[in-house]
Amino acid sequence: MDNFTFYSPTYFVFGKDSEDQVGEYVKKFGGTTVLVHFGGKSAKSSGLLDRVEASLKKEGLKYVMLGGVKPNPRSGLVYEGIELCRKEKVDFILAVGGGSVIDSSKAIAAGVDYEGDFWDFYSGKPIEKALSVGTILTIAAAGSEGSPDSVITKEEGMFKRGASGDAIRPKFSILNPALTQTLPAFQSAAGITDIMAHLYERYLTNTGDVEVTDRLIEALLLTMKHEAPRVMADPNNYEARANIMWAGMMAHNNSCGVGRSQDWNSHNIEHELSALYDCAHGAGLAVTMPAVFRYVYKHDVMRFAKVATRVWGCQMDFDHPEVTALEGIDAFQHFLISIGMPANFQQLGARKEDIPKLVEVLCRGDGREGSISGFVTLSEEDCTKIYEMMV
Amino acid sequence: MDNFTFYSPTYFVFGKDSEDQVGEYVKKFGGTTVLVHFGGKSAKSSGLLDRVEASLKKEGLKYVMLGGVKPNPRSGLVYEGIELCRKEKVDFILAVGGGSVIDSSKAIAAGVDYEGDFWDFYSGKPIEKALSVGTILTIAAAGSEGSPDSVITKEEGMFKRGASGDAIRPKFSILNPALTQTLPAFQSAAGITDIMAHLYERYLTNTGDVEVTDRLIEALLLTMKHEAPRVMADPNNYEARANIMWAGMMAHNNSCGVGRSQDWNSHNIEHELSALYDCAHGAGLAVTMPAVFRYVYKHDVMRFAKVATRVWGCQMDFDHPEVTALEGIDAFQHFLISIGMPANFQQLGARKEDIPKLVEVLCRGDGREGSISGFVTLSEEDCTKIYEMMV
Repeated sequence: MDNFTFYSPTYFVFGKDSEDQVGEYVKKFGGTTVLVHFGGKSAKSSGLLDRVEASLKKEGLKYVMLGGVKPNPRSGLVYEGIELCRKEKVDFILAVGGGSVIDSSKAIAAGVDYEGDFWDFYSGKPIEKALSVGTILTIAAAGSEGSPDSVITKEEGMFKRGASGDAIRPKFSILNPALTQTLPAFQSAAGITDIMAHLYERYLTNTGDVEVTDRLIEALLLTMKHEAPRVMADPNNYEARANIMWAGMMAHNNSCGVGRSQDWNSHNIEHELSALYDCAHGAGLAVTMPAVFRYVYKHDVMRFAKVATRVWGCQMDFDHPEVTALEGIDAFQHFLISIGMPANFQQLGARKEDIPKLVEVLCRGDGREGSISGFVTLSEEDCTKIYEMMV
Repeated sequence: MDNFTFYSPTYFVFGKDSEDQVGEYVKKFGGTTVLVHFGGKSAKSSGLLDRVEASLKKEGLKYVMLGGVKPNPRSGLVYEGIELCRKEKVDFILAVGGGSVIDSSKAIAAGVDYEGDFWDFYSGKPIEKALSVGTILTIAAAGSEGSPDSVITKEEGMFKRGASGDAIRPKFSILNPALTQTLPAFQSAAGITDIMAHLYERYLTNTGDVEVTDRLIEALLLTMKHEAPRVMADPNNYEARANIMWAGMMAHNNSCGVGRSQDWNSHNIEHELSALYDCAHGAGLAVTMPAVFRYVYKHDVMRFAKVATRVWGCQMDFDHPEVTALEGIDAFQHFLISIGMPANFQQLGARKEDIPKLVEVLCRGDGREGSISGFVTLSEEDCTKIYEMMV
């Protein structure tokens, strides 16, 4: 196991009606003037925003509202949020939504007291301080509610890049599984896929002898495998939603990823798809992961055979472990298709003729030098072949 | 899943030589005058205390030393520590040791600024504030490095009782698996048993539909099952020690126990044994758990069959699930015996004729009213029978 530090100081409030306490938690963590940041209509029409406003008012907190965050959140709204916070002297940012809203909130939080362009943080500059962020999660997917990470798309050039830092970890996160019951089936499935991707990206490691984190990752994958079909069959299944919601947080707060190298090539390869086509990140991952895994599995056949047997219930072929490895990748893809995810470029709305452009941005954009690294280092040629496998 | 809150703000520093940074971490978390609290000779003879002192001096920190913590830590040394902290104006307590040292440190931390008797906190009074505590862990066992819990034995009456509160959660914990390599085999095995007990006590729940935490608990049990024999075969196996150390923290910071009722009857029944006979807590648990499980398994046969099949590799007997349930309990006890743990009163150094006294203190001591509650509520008669099963 590699040396590591682990710090996850977010206060989680989990369960039915927990969002009604949001005012108390903002106060507990020092907020006085709040930016309520959210997405579109559903937060309003469901009555969630009304309840949030009522709770903030009850605690005597001032607040301003900023909606309009879209999936694959853009830099434009971040700049707008930063300006608004400066003007209104906001000291606390409350994200009401899914990963996109939370990531946008984190970007604003980092940018308000920073003199330069907030994009510097998404180009590698460490985030040293930020306004406090709290969240009310409405989609189990990104894990941003318990992570130090944020992903934003810069409209100039359509670069989709990540930033990370303890300063932007949420101070509290309110997780009410009932809020996810109204999600459309496709969004639920995309969220499930994103959670499973966070697990696979950690599972694909070059660090040996990491049984504890292997087992924890497998535990969360097994949970997803069991609970996802229950949610697809009955979107109102609170218990299944609850299991998925906690798994989604645990999948990405890194308690199951410490002390081991991780992958993140599937995420990087996918980010270009959702940046160019504005597809759901989870849907893009459903197409990307099987292709990446089939391209790289020979790098460590036994690791793929392990997840195949322990998670997907494949029988180990001791004479031909590569058969088991591939069987596990097939099983994963069949699972993703069974919950309604796309399997190829066409279903995703991507185009074969764009591959050179995708590879160019992926491997050369924003300071990269012809490859991406992870479980395996992938050259432009590798990435081209992987995108071609998705067609 | 039940509603819950979860908060684990401890900063973990994990890996080789990590204790050399202790001065920096004390400073980072606001300490200026430190009580270094430790156990016996091994911390000195191994050179660990010298390295700790060097690191504190390097950062210009003042410190006083208080050694002598014994397993099943006593109230006497807590009172002494409180007096010393008041006299020396200590503002940070550094525990260098295992669960006993950490628990004693937490008790001192809670008591320094409290006007009454610190034992009030171990009789149910909430801990509202405490001095900051940091730890350097030398035994993977109690999980106290990442928990809000502390267990102390009151010498007057030999009551062994727990207290809990976020205020006594360690600010940081330094986990270097190499520090556990010099432990005697028996202590390593007792620690392993304690970790597995923390998992079983969470597994035995009356809350339905908690797949995510079931799976996480099973993952950690599977890790222990795999790594423990490797440590017993080679005490210097750093990788196995590392896997166990992280599993020990995860087993007890409650990320795998949230949203579900828990048991803790085995712990309560054992506490009377280690209080009366001063045996190792883990050794006491090795004798207690199989008896408790065999006494209560009919309360939820399927739960015991689940852990039997998923962790112990038993084949499910679908016609007679109780056979599988008992097979899993047998497998667990055989495992404990295989790593050198005792199986009965005699091997533990306990006496049959003391059973009435054990039951009296367990069920009537310190405010209890004739029973203990958990997975199953156990009367004095039940507890008598359970102790008798251990003879």
